[in-house]
Amino acid sequence: MRRAVFVGRFQPFHNGHLEVVKRIVEEVDELIIVVGSSQYSHNKDNPFTAGERITMIRNALKEAGIMLSKIWIIPVPDVHHHSLWVSQVVGYCPKFDVVYANEPLTRRLFIEAGFKVEDMPLIKREVYLATEIRERMQTGKEWETLVPPSVARFIKDINGDVRIRELNKTDTIC
Amino acid sequence: MRRAVFVGRFQPFHNGHLEVVKRIVEEVDELIIVVGSSQYSHNKDNPFTAGERITMIRNALKEAGIMLSKIWIIPVPDVHHHSLWVSQVVGYCPKFDVVYANEPLTRRLFIEAGFKVEDMPLIKREVYLATEIRERMQTGKEWETLVPPSVARFIKDINGDVRIRELNKTDTIC
Amino acid sequence: MRRAVFVGRFQPFHNGHLEVVKRIVEEVDELIIVVGSSQYSHNKDNPFTAGERITMIRNALKEAGIMLSKIWIIPVPDVHHHSLWVSQVVGYCPKFDVVYANEPLTRRLFIEAGFKVEDMPLIKREVYLATEIRERMQTGKEWETLVPPSVARFIKDINGDVRIRELNKTDTIC
Amino acid sequence: MRRAVFVGRFQPFHNGHLEVVKRIVEEVDELIIVVGSSQYSHNKDNPFTAGERITMIRNALKEAGIMLSKIWIIPVPDVHHHSLWVSQVVGYCPKFDVVYANEPLTRRLFIEAGFKVEDMPLIKREVYLATEIRERMQTGKEWETLVPPSVARFIKDINGDVRIRELNKTDTIC
Amino acid sequence: MRRAVFVGRFQPFHNGHLEVVKRIVEEVDELIIVVGSSQYSHNKDNPFTAGERITMIRNALKEAGIMLSKIWIIPVPDVHHHSLWVSQVVGYCPKFDVVYANEPLTRRLFIEAGFKVEDMPLIKREVYLATEIRERMQTGKEWETLVPPSVARFIKDINGDVRIRELNKTDTIC
Amino acid sequence: MRRAVFVGRFQPFHNGHLEVVKRIVEEVDELIIVVGSSQYSHNKDNPFTAGERITMIRNALKEAGIMLSKIWIIPVPDVHHHSLWVSQVVGYCPKFDVVYANEPLTRRLFIEAGFKVEDMPLIKREVYLATEIRERMQTGKEWETLVPPSVARFIKDINGDVRIRELNKTDTIC
Repeated sequence: MRRAVFVGRFQPFHNGHLEVVKRIVEEVDELIIVVGSSQYSHNKDNPFTAGERITMIRNALKEAGIMLSKIWIIPVPDVHHHSLWVSQVVGYCPKFDVVYANEPLTRRLFIEAGFKVEDMPLIKREVYLATEIRERMQTGKEWETLVPPSVARFIKDINGDVRIRELNKTDTIC
Repeated sequence: MRRAVFVGRFQPFHNGHLEVVKRIVEEVDELIIVVGSSQYSHNKDNPFTAGERITMIRNALKEAGIMLSKIWIIPVPDVHHHSLWVSQVVGYCPKFDVVYANEPLTRRLFIEAGFKVEDMPLIKREVYLATEIRERMQTGKEWETLVPPSVARFIKDINGDVRIRELNKTDTIC
Repeated sequence: MRRAVFVGRFQPFHNGHLEVVKRIVEEVDELIIVVGSSQYSHNKDNPFTAGERITMIRNALKEAGIMLSKIWIIPVPDVHHHSLWVSQVVGYCPKFDVVYANEPLTRRLFIEAGFKVEDMPLIKREVYLATEIRERMQTGKEWETLVPPSVARFIKDINGDVRIRELNKTDTIC
Repeated sequence: MRRAVFVGRFQPFHNGHLEVVKRIVEEVDELIIVVGSSQYSHNKDNPFTAGERITMIRNALKEAGIMLSKIWIIPVPDVHHHSLWVSQVVGYCPKFDVVYANEPLTRRLFIEAGFKVEDMPLIKREVYLATEIRERMQTGKEWETLVPPSVARFIKDINGDVRIRELNKTDTIC
Repeated sequence: MRRAVFVGRFQPFHNGHLEVVKRIVEEVDELIIVVGSSQYSHNKDNPFTAGERITMIRNALKEAGIMLSKIWIIPVPDVHHHSLWVSQVVGYCPKFDVVYANEPLTRRLFIEAGFKVEDMPLIKREVYLATEIRERMQTGKEWETLVPPSVARFIKDINGDVRIRELNKTDTIC
Repeated sequence: MRRAVFVGRFQPFHNGHLEVVKRIVEEVDELIIVVGSSQYSHNKDNPFTAGERITMIRNALKEAGIMLSKIWIIPVPDVHHHSLWVSQVVGYCPKFDVVYANEPLTRRLFIEAGFKVEDMPLIKREVYLATEIRERMQTGKEWETLVPPSVARFIKDINGDVRIRELNKTDTIC
């Protein structure tokens, strides 16, 4: 059996992520989606909690007809000491054979640890950026079409776009 | 929709846990299994990693014919400050309505935080104790029948019983 | 009895903070001043220790004739996981009914946790900024009139302005 | 001006602590009561949160007619590295001249750091033990007369004795 | 070149440790002495700071005529998550080929990580135990002959035996 | 005996550092080289692990003919609370008399703690900057002559320059 890991922060889970998942799922038996930096939320780069991100991913996979029995969704907290990161992922996951990642640090750490690392089949990456989505939410621009419909609904349900706008206001008293 | 949380350490996941899961699943729409103390492993009370425990749980649920689409398995690290524990669980999980727990501290913390807490329909608890299983592994007694068959196979595959025996040897030089 | 919380970092405690305290004290029976980020000091944004900040606040309140029996001054360390922050404050404080805050993240977290959050009656905020005071100290400009006289004296006694100037020098060897 | 520190965990604040405070207050100008291990609560040895302990102390001092203007009550989190403990206390407190402590580790650390450490004028210490009070709460024996009346009332208001009893129940499923 | 690691806490460094070092040094080109649990001190099981332990080791090696150019002495803090421990040691040390250890957990973790682990040539282990030495210090029995002469002198210079006796006194007020 | 401390991060150890070490060694009996921020690696400002940095330093000192018996190389993890930093260094090191440092924060903290702090005899500092070396590695410019020959060889052996280039690539999917 072939099991892959896909590491991301998913702030939020968007159409680009979903395309990546679909592609990997065709190539392996099981896919572990590692929700990194799981302990962070409510800051500019990490607005959503681990629970919210897991919910988004699961909703989007269901919506896309991907069998949950092939998927593991596992939140993994950062360990700030990069030399420990690969061991941290290994400790939180079932055994895996291959790592899909484009993020250079993640790639580098797994390569130095002797893992097989593949490029992710990224699709339209220049469009579907989490960073851009967060900026659009912040500035009130259209962002809903960049994420799966169920994710857009969920973010609105929890007032996620309002949260992002408020997190980015600066205050001067403190 | 009614969603419940079941908090445990699952060191290891045993027949008692499985019975509890089966019962709760009949009463709610979805069940979140929180794998607590997720950061610990390789010590006497926490021999297995989060990844190993998640694997056990998933294997056992599949074996028992429980639909994974109704289940969330989420590792949650301890935060050592008990006053923060409920917020930690809330932050790692999708929204939930009810907590199933028998462990007094867990119950107390959720009650003080205003959650609805139910007793777990414990079955034959005096027999299926995780503590007893670990002690049997350590002393070389029969333990395999106290866990689901897939869990017993998995523990043997990873030499989990050997690990427990070695962790309990005391050494005197250091 | 009505008890309010006022959250800040107080780096340093300045005239704007004092005005806010005076206003809140008129409206409630007791006021808890939470000295946030209590573990930090000696960096650019947090030059003063918790002990130094508590001293400033207490001196300034005495000087302003505010009864200490109505005031609680409580240092609270950051917990880096924003989803835990409200529980952290709750765990360090006596029970309170209302939160005074203008800082958007603080406001957002307390609102999401179901607390009543009021805008602070900010006065001349554009003038009395902690950030500006630290910059004035750093560049050697007049800053003493922006803080209560007792705070100015205390900062000079501990060479606080010298500390800030030195913390902002950059070095290139490391 | 002479300022003293009195370090304790105050789980709970009892008559013995109050007597110590009264004695020290007669000898110094100001007293800092350091509420140690401030981050812990809801465990067997540390049932009460920092906020609850600060409330107890403040209530008891008011009841005893001790002027709050002479007292600083400051929660200080443990730093697990004992070699850093004295610096931690120094960082959280205003300047102080003398340390009152009987606890050998606290005494030792302050002595090794060059501080003046005095024995606390302990009174009837064999009777007023925090440990004994917690055990009495747990076993349902009379404990109310060992703490100041206001502390007894507060503990009952928050169901503190129930909490201690529940924290001490053992469970066997996990 | 063949480089070995010897992991211990060295509380304190005693004659047994020295014998082990002598033996390993004969078999390898270089030896890394990892001073584990480096962040702890001033508690019953870890009375000495990392700095004090490094000093003991270095003094003892010089006294025994072991060339420091063959030795690396490296303090390594615990990472509480055992699944990360091997990566932690690897991150703090130069490359090494073999691990000398008798402590079962250390052995187990390095074996699971694929390292070559050898039994230490323990000599008279039943006599030269760190635990026993600490107990002798505590009870005032003769301990000096169980450690190298330079270590005995150093411990007396820093009043290390007094520290241990004081750390073991119990107090009842807190 | 006169023992000095030289604090740095050594990312990487370069010719400027080596000159400083040579100068201090002439003035004192022993020199402790504290490898600060020891827990960090694989990020832009801290590309190398503690183990790699210790290896660089040791190789360079051997190459320069500096007696290792006069040198202590000690990795010290950051404690994020600057008020604890001096105690942290003291706890990890043997006793020392004087601190050599140019970095303003380090100097300030040791001065406030009452230590004797001397300016480092910096040589050609404008040339031998660690920051510049890292930037040269990143942009593919010549950097090898700015570090001791053994350090250049070591960095190439571990593909350190490749690592730095990869750590600085930005990715946009997460």
